Amino acid sequence: MDTKGHSFLDRVFNILKDETADEVPLIQFKHPKELEEILSNDLDISINVDDKELENSVRKILQYSVKTNKVTFRNQLYGPMDPYGLAGTWIAEAFNTSQYTFEVAPVFTLIELKMIEHILKLFGIPGGDGIFSPGGSVSMLYALVAARFKKFPEVKSKGMQKLPEMTIFTSEDSHYSIIKAAHWLGFGTESVISIKTNSSGQMIVNELNKAIERQLGLGKYPVFVNATAGTTVLGAIDDLEAIASVCKKYDIWMHVDACWGGGLMLSATLRKRLQGIQFADSISWNPHKMIGAPLQCSIFLLKEKGLLHEANAAAAQYLFQQDKFYDVRYDTGDKSVQCGRKIDSFKLWMMWKARGDIGLCKVMDHVMSISEFCLRSIAEREGFRLVSDTLQCPNICFWYIPVFMRKREENDEWWALIHKITPKLKELLTLSSRLMIAYTPLRHHKNFFRLAFTFHPVLEENHVLEILKSIEECGEMVNTDMV
Amino acid sequence: MDTKGHSFLDRVFNILKDETADEVPLIQFKHPKELEEILSNDLDISINVDDKELENSVRKILQYSVKTNKVTFRNQLYGPMDPYGLAGTWIAEAFNTSQYTFEVAPVFTLIELKMIEHILKLFGIPGGDGIFSPGGSVSMLYALVAARFKKFPEVKSKGMQKLPEMTIFTSEDSHYSIIKAAHWLGFGTESVISIKTNSSGQMIVNELNKAIERQLGLGKYPVFVNATAGTTVLGAIDDLEAIASVCKKYDIWMHVDACWGGGLMLSATLRKRLQGIQFADSISWNPHKMIGAPLQCSIFLLKEKGLLHEANAAAAQYLFQQDKFYDVRYDTGDKSVQCGRKIDSFKLWMMWKARGDIGLCKVMDHVMSISEFCLRSIAEREGFRLVSDTLQCPNICFWYIPVFMRKREENDEWWALIHKITPKLKELLTLSSRLMIAYTPLRHHKNFFRLAFTFHPVLEENHVLEILKSIEECGEMVNTDMV
Repeated sequence: MDTKGHSFLDRVFNILKDETADEVPLIQFKHPKELEEILSNDLDISINVDDKELENSVRKILQYSVKTNKVTFRNQLYGPMDPYGLAGTWIAEAFNTSQYTFEVAPVFTLIELKMIEHILKLFGIPGGDGIFSPGGSVSMLYALVAARFKKFPEVKSKGMQKLPEMTIFTSEDSHYSIIKAAHWLGFGTESVISIKTNSSGQMIVNELNKAIERQLGLGKYPVFVNATAGTTVLGAIDDLEAIASVCKKYDIWMHVDACWGGGLMLSATLRKRLQGIQFADSISWNPHKMIGAPLQCSIFLLKEKGLLHEANAAAAQYLFQQDKFYDVRYDTGDKSVQCGRKIDSFKLWMMWKARGDIGLCKVMDHVMSISEFCLRSIAEREGFRLVSDTLQCPNICFWYIPVFMRKREENDEWWALIHKITPKLKELLTLSSRLMIAYTPLRHHKNFFRLAFTFHPVLEENHVLEILKSIEECGEMVNTDMV
Repeated sequence: MDTKGHSFLDRVFNILKDETADEVPLIQFKHPKELEEILSNDLDISINVDDKELENSVRKILQYSVKTNKVTFRNQLYGPMDPYGLAGTWIAEAFNTSQYTFEVAPVFTLIELKMIEHILKLFGIPGGDGIFSPGGSVSMLYALVAARFKKFPEVKSKGMQKLPEMTIFTSEDSHYSIIKAAHWLGFGTESVISIKTNSSGQMIVNELNKAIERQLGLGKYPVFVNATAGTTVLGAIDDLEAIASVCKKYDIWMHVDACWGGGLMLSATLRKRLQGIQFADSISWNPHKMIGAPLQCSIFLLKEKGLLHEANAAAAQYLFQQDKFYDVRYDTGDKSVQCGRKIDSFKLWMMWKARGDIGLCKVMDHVMSISEFCLRSIAEREGFRLVSDTLQCPNICFWYIPVFMRKREENDEWWALIHKITPKLKELLTLSSRLMIAYTPLRHHKNFFRLAFTFHPVLEENHVLEILKSIEECGEMVNTDMV
């Protein structure tokens, strides 16, 4: 055996420094086939290379990768990381540890417990339980499993087949993970009832009420309402108090998907937007989105202590021995559907320890203040039109209307053209490396842009103006021949 | 906004260097309450601290954490990491990227595709499909979902309730993830039929045959056979060819859980132990176990191309737009149950690029040669008794019998005492920081030890002898008053 490779670790810092330097472009876009061609030798793994060649390949790979740390990376609901979070994840990776038992992860176990305890209090459900999961979609699976088990504990041994036909309620603007979860868990996607939203993207609670009545009338068993605190596109926060009342009335599990909007809870002034979240039976929150924890950092919380373990435990005797020499209640891994599980709590602990509740409040307030500035700027700016002027989460959705389109009648053809112009404009922005921005249609709305803001160490108002200028300049290059 | 924290990244290397140095003990064990007391200020996150204080807390946390890089860390089926893998994971973390679309992860998408293509060939199912998942248990969920969808595609929309009662077959020594999966997916744990194993821990294929016939007789629908290539405790590899014949005969999906044993496929001589794996419909393999990829690195493979996408796609229009300006077949994320997903393929690419097929073959051969040496040493050594002398994967299971026990009659009381001595001995080894080793009962066997070997940069035969010496020395400290 050799110790080959240890010296490569020393190169990592320099590689990263060079490849994420200020002068490096956001993206050098190449089409898939082109990129395969450029990197064909680098991607080939059958023959080994020496450290110098490896470094060259790594640098080439990073050159063609997206620099998510740039202020102009606005393509997703995440961005650059809190450097404390990155330090935490590097350390956790170097300590290569799995989270299942106290004996292998003594301090990391305590850290996960402490983080969950702190966050449960923050979300208004002290005394509850929770777990770090590998993402919001897995948290959604946890939530549905918990709700189903609470109503029908026999599901664990007997399965779904003898249970009544259950229905699940969610808004039409909610995240698609609930559809995937309904398939996986055996409910079927047709069991998911989509509830209409208002123009801001909030679930219409009266429609929820009616839908539940309708399902009851059909002999179905309503088991789960998924309220969203921060929809993916518009950033809408459902009326959690009103939904809680409905859930209470019908005795239905209330889950709040706060994967995106949960960050607002950190702010003393913004958290009232999630008023009612304390009535939830379960909550999911992804600190890897709004507050810049490194991917993956995702938390699933429940109000009822013990349920998570009861639902998920399999009591593997090779791992969760009951005759260990320490208090085995600290072996928390059997709450999880996973066996091996990463130490995702440590990076969040690092961020929180460095910034404290007050520092994270400031982070959140700054994100929202930039978003408000962006919304106002867009509202005032010629050629930009807002999809919604409600700002609950830091999402701003809008169309850019090039000069040649502005005086025309806004009929179906006009909108059909806007629908094509939006992706074309995105293409120009990407190819020129000026901006990566999301676009999407939504309900009756034709393709529009979504700018979303998350933790960023240097993002200020002038960057927002630069972003809008890029959209204008590329927007004026689009013409009808192109689309 | 500030750039607070960036300078902390510079400290990470020094912290890690000090806290994992040669002279640092494997573990300084403290009981949970004691540890909470020692670290109470460090774990408190409500008030922020400066970088110096943060560093102190981090160092304290690491001091009480387990050093999984030591040769004496033999507690789990993972250990230290390949340094190239660690470099890869550090880089991937710093590039904070999610794996769903080509536009945000152009090169990382190609790397995942290339790695899967290479590994599919290695496992004898070229032309198949695959995905990196957050661990073996999630891979098991993928496998069951795929098998069920293949037989009953209507499950996706209609759920489990109108389907026939399905049964799942697995050996009594297989991993517990199948139990959790059966609950989550709505089969119910009672649908999992446990098949007896022989003394080496391999599924008795004739028993499988009989169990299938019995279930058919009961009107049940056999849907899934889980063969294990590397059981968790004994490291047994089921007779994959024989199981494949049974699956073919009854037209049942064959999954091979090679999470542990899959590493043997890297070795030209060892891979024949998994002969028959090429007949599998799906396979799971965790490179984060035997070959030292950093946690998490887990792969799920299927023989049938396209099925993974068909089963799991939800076609979210905000993410997987079909009017993008590039070939959207490279947006591979809709195959996944996750939305955001870590770049787990890059660390494995780094390892493979640095070592090549030949280098990884050597890694594997070395792991097995050390294990064979350990098995022989234990077989010859007084006071040690093997649970099984078959060595398919690098697991060696044995009892240590202290001198005062050796001449006694081995009746029920004797075994009851051994059952108590084993965990006591583990306690002494842990508290003295000499060795962390796994123990477990299995079937009729009373508590015994499992030594398992994985990639290690410096592990040699003399370390194995040191480990056995530690067991002997601590073993002779145990007396009947202690247990």
